[in-house]
Amino acid sequence: MKIGFFQFAPSIGNVDHNRTRLVEALLQTDADLLVAPELSVSGYYFSSTAQARELAEPIPGPTTDALSEASAKSGCTIVTGIAELAGEQLFNSAVVIGPEGIIGTYRKIHLFNEEKLHFTPGSDGFFSFDLQGVKIGVLVCFDHMFPEAARSLALQGVQIICHPSNLVLPEYGQLTSRVRAFENRMFWVLTNRWGTETVGEKSLTFTGTSQVVNPRGRILIRAETAGDEISAVEVDPKESLDKHITEYNHLLNDRRPEFYFT
Amino acid sequence: MKIGFFQFAPSIGNVDHNRTRLVEALLQTDADLLVAPELSVSGYYFSSTAQARELAEPIPGPTTDALSEASAKSGCTIVTGIAELAGEQLFNSAVVIGPEGIIGTYRKIHLFNEEKLHFTPGSDGFFSFDLQGVKIGVLVCFDHMFPEAARSLALQGVQIICHPSNLVLPEYGQLTSRVRAFENRMFWVLTNRWGTETVGEKSLTFTGTSQVVNPRGRILIRAETAGDEISAVEVDPKESLDKHITEYNHLLNDRRPEFYFT
Repeated sequence: MKIGFFQFAPSIGNVDHNRTRLVEALLQTDADLLVAPELSVSGYYFSSTAQARELAEPIPGPTTDALSEASAKSGCTIVTGIAELAGEQLFNSAVVIGPEGIIGTYRKIHLFNEEKLHFTPGSDGFFSFDLQGVKIGVLVCFDHMFPEAARSLALQGVQIICHPSNLVLPEYGQLTSRVRAFENRMFWVLTNRWGTETVGEKSLTFTGTSQVVNPRGRILIRAETAGDEISAVEVDPKESLDKHITEYNHLLNDRRPEFYFT
Repeated sequence: MKIGFFQFAPSIGNVDHNRTRLVEALLQTDADLLVAPELSVSGYYFSSTAQARELAEPIPGPTTDALSEASAKSGCTIVTGIAELAGEQLFNSAVVIGPEGIIGTYRKIHLFNEEKLHFTPGSDGFFSFDLQGVKIGVLVCFDHMFPEAARSLALQGVQIICHPSNLVLPEYGQLTSRVRAFENRMFWVLTNRWGTETVGEKSLTFTGTSQVVNPRGRILIRAETAGDEISAVEVDPKESLDKHITEYNHLLNDRRPEFYFT
């Protein structure tokens, strides 16, 4: 299975442009699974909830239609961040789209900073799906900071984490994705946007450095801190199935939940 | 508060020698809190459970007596790994000793590899103690691989983790200690031994690189991969108390346990 990232700099408010970039990436890649950044369609730094609402769209909607068509042509499944409009509510979501259409949606559970002003936190739990017999999970950006998130997916049998992100701090997400990968024996695709967005006198600069990590925590491919890049690597997802790290140690069975969080 | 590590290479079976090294370190340091490696008194790579038993000792016992005396002289509190003999059982423990004597013992909860042949896993839960009004927790080596361990201590209010280790893999413990430090906003003192121990045709080489990390995950001081080193750094434990990483985000209160591990 070939898995990879599409790192780019979504342009705030330019939905048509951003959607076209996602379609182009799907048509260009030879990956089986491609991960795009968080909120790739709308951009990230909203000046108001009204603007976020204006840039959001339902699922299904124009973006999932366009990506379904592109996925059917390319054969590649995409996981992309999207501002989801669901009735009166907005969710910071990631949608999974394959050649057959929409596979599912994950609504971000841990919202970061001013996202809390615009979005409703997800309350549908963590999300995983099957691709070619491989179990794949989705987390969005700040979810990475909570080890319980990746652990929950690992305990559900997830082998690959797709992690659309808009990280502003350098290094943290790159470190957590390695540690979560080796403490759970999973692959991890971190796709982080780059570029700067400004609201009034405040601006956010996103830090790129997308990477694919193997279940030993090794970085297989990595992007620069800035610049568009579409890159993928062939992996064997079965590497994530054996949780034994010694003859006597199994990373999940050695947990002792009776002593945790009491 | 000055906190630090005493990295050295305990000599398997040479209990008197190893104990003397610990006493010397206590008398030499100007730290308030010093962390020594896992199983510092006995050495690590036992050829049999009989040998482990022979090198173990009760708490209180000769080592805690010697360290209590040294701690009273130096004013420094020490956390050191020790093979603990408790009736018929052996525990891979860490004992905490201050100027007033024994403060407490932690029995390692997650045993690594052949440790499972010799030791009983701890069943007293995680352990913390108070030093100068600061709450300090103890984990031993492989406990680091389970994010639930440090998280459990963080939820109990622990500000500094003392982590006596005998790590053989390079890098993993150095990465997890940084990530656990910033995901929980704690200080972390990782003390890892160096040197090689051999049983028959098998040998283990320990990887040193002890380090003190701050609640932002920054490495404040770090030792080489091999070589004795006693080193400490002045820190302000209050840095660990504020779990807000943005105006809207609190690392512990933002947890959503209703979705974890279900």
